[in-house]
Amino acid sequence: MPHIDLPEGVPGIRSAMMFRPETAAPLNQLAEVLLRGDNTLTRGERELIAAYVSNLNECVFCQTSHSTFAAKQLDGGMELVDRVKTDPDGAPISDKLRALLGIAAKVRADGRSVTPEDVEAARNEGATDVEIHDTVLIAAAFCMYNRYVDGLATWTPTDPAIYDEMGDRIVSQGYLRPPGVVAPA
Amino acid sequence: MPHIDLPEGVPGIRSAMMFRPETAAPLNQLAEVLLRGDNTLTRGERELIAAYVSNLNECVFCQTSHSTFAAKQLDGGMELVDRVKTDPDGAPISDKLRALLGIAAKVRADGRSVTPEDVEAARNEGATDVEIHDTVLIAAAFCMYNRYVDGLATWTPTDPAIYDEMGDRIVSQGYLRPPGVVAPA
Repeated sequence: MPHIDLPEGVPGIRSAMMFRPETAAPLNQLAEVLLRGDNTLTRGERELIAAYVSNLNECVFCQTSHSTFAAKQLDGGMELVDRVKTDPDGAPISDKLRALLGIAAKVRADGRSVTPEDVEAARNEGATDVEIHDTVLIAAAFCMYNRYVDGLATWTPTDPAIYDEMGDRIVSQGYLRPPGVVAPA
Repeated sequence: MPHIDLPEGVPGIRSAMMFRPETAAPLNQLAEVLLRGDNTLTRGERELIAAYVSNLNECVFCQTSHSTFAAKQLDGGMELVDRVKTDPDGAPISDKLRALLGIAAKVRADGRSVTPEDVEAARNEGATDVEIHDTVLIAAAFCMYNRYVDGLATWTPTDPAIYDEMGDRIVSQGYLRPPGVVAPA
């Protein structure tokens, strides 16, 4: 049961966003820019970084959601997402993305653990400064979203259909829908 | 030295915000709502939660900044801020704020560690659902800001006058100044 009086039957972060629309606006805007805005990293790659970090943080709602959103936007689908989460070194992804995932994992643990060598390795695989910046901020932002979702004990659905439906809406409409609009027909 | 090509001579998070104004906008808007928007927690109390979490995360730039911003808006000044950071149980603050700081510390470690008993204790001291929500989100957000600042190895000034000047500007103008405007005359 959620720690505070959140709207019932609304999954995860969206219940907290309905409770407090004043903070929902910048939280959604940040997700939209980071995960869907113009970028040389694809939307699927950025959702994969979000899913990877959320999985390391063991936030079930976020990791299930963003794994679904990533799978819908990557050629390898959920099989690739699962492989990245369990075996990032061996997964069939670009070496650039692998290096960025390594930076994301370090940011998740502690921002200070990122070394110049980590960044140089990503740059040697073709990562740009903006891609490195956005990877750091996606990882940092999911350290926020994960704690927000779990710190309020929001509802984590177990029915995969709910995540699938959320995924279809995120892929087609993005993160900027009004927080009150849930599961439209 | 920063890991990417950030503007020189610009402290901490502001250099990253100048580098990437697209993400700076929601990051600043979130700080403005959480730390300065209408609230039954005072601005000083909310900056104190931010400073407390940033200190636990050992983010020198953020903890020095927000300690300064808190001290400027609390009757007890920096002496109180230092006391809260080193001895939250004994510091002369309200029992409600002490309970909220306890929730913030748990969110920082792992959102899942917050218990119904922690929330009940805060509620018994008069905390409202919005105050509990905002405490959780402030703590979560500083887990992001701290990792963003340190994950890019931004410049951490050592001159207290720089933090003092930033504090005067935050207290008088808030977090929504254009990211390009640094140290106005």
